[in-house]
Amino acid sequence: MHVPLPDSSPRLLQQLEFIRAIDGLKSVLRRTLLMDASRRENSGEHSWHIAVMAMTLAEYSPEPVNLLRVMGMLLLHDVVEVDAGDTYCYDEQANLDKEDREQAAATRIFNLLPEDSATEFRALWEEFEARESADAKFANALDRFQPLLHNYLTKGELWAEHGVRRAAVEKRMAPVQDGAPRLWEYVQKLLDSACAKGFLLE
Amino acid sequence: MHVPLPDSSPRLLQQLEFIRAIDGLKSVLRRTLLMDASRRENSGEHSWHIAVMAMTLAEYSPEPVNLLRVMGMLLLHDVVEVDAGDTYCYDEQANLDKEDREQAAATRIFNLLPEDSATEFRALWEEFEARESADAKFANALDRFQPLLHNYLTKGELWAEHGVRRAAVEKRMAPVQDGAPRLWEYVQKLLDSACAKGFLLE
Repeated sequence: MHVPLPDSSPRLLQQLEFIRAIDGLKSVLRRTLLMDASRRENSGEHSWHIAVMAMTLAEYSPEPVNLLRVMGMLLLHDVVEVDAGDTYCYDEQANLDKEDREQAAATRIFNLLPEDSATEFRALWEEFEARESADAKFANALDRFQPLLHNYLTKGELWAEHGVRRAAVEKRMAPVQDGAPRLWEYVQKLLDSACAKGFLLE
Repeated sequence: MHVPLPDSSPRLLQQLEFIRAIDGLKSVLRRTLLMDASRRENSGEHSWHIAVMAMTLAEYSPEPVNLLRVMGMLLLHDVVEVDAGDTYCYDEQANLDKEDREQAAATRIFNLLPEDSATEFRALWEEFEARESADAKFANALDRFQPLLHNYLTKGELWAEHGVRRAAVEKRMAPVQDGAPRLWEYVQKLLDSACAKGFLLE
């Protein structure tokens, strides 16, 4: 079912087609459960959650961040998954061609927009992916910290399902050390406690 | 299943309990369908979508807006629904005590946070609700425009289910006229077209 939009200025129609396309992110399922373990989380609601986390936890960045840019990155960081799907971080095979798939998706999806917004949004996404600026480091830290919280609060159900061990999770969390060092201490506490309680294998 | 978090500073624990509490928004179902009509939308993913719409459509505000504040309002505007539920806009009975239920929810949920953030976030939420500032008017316009798009693109399936007519939708869309007048013209086009195609009853 593809319902065409009523005619308007080309600019508004381009904006609305982008808004329509990214709706697909609500149907991309991640390998995390909601905190009440009722179902798997989708990438749309995940993006909302980490943007609110940025508002809540901005003080944990070691450098001042531009919160508008951080939130923009977090709201956009997964839209490529509309085409490329969610690539499970512990699936080495799927990660081999992840970058190619996501670059192609970025080209299609951001180019639905008028050129000025396409350029701006893609630059934010590339900056997030590059993890070099203070804003991107902090944004990435939250993107890693959030699923750790979810996995902890759901007693590691999906870690167990996928046979994930502490060393792999700790490696995955490395951007937190850099982007939010005061949360890194808490990452260690969560991992220690997860292992002690049997939520995660050493 | 309530899993306690490992101990930390009181401040971080307050922040994390807020982040845990708002996860419930992903389970609050709205009276709109995803644009592919596959299921009902939840308030978490809705909040993400309209925050991206704010980034995309900021130029349609008749006054310059502070996009960071607009996005903050949109990301937080529905968190009270974790306790108060989604109140269907066309349900007059349920709307009678909506404000009381939402005020009580705001008190509980925002007060999970450290006092400085609780004050700041609640003020953003109150500002959104009051619809007086330019930022709040624009944010409210998007919050009304988004479900109209969803209903149009799903051929008015939920309008039909609830017997909603054009006059009610048009009244509901009034904040668009004020907060994004150039989108108001498009609202009229969508309503005209929805009626012509049989998605909405005159």
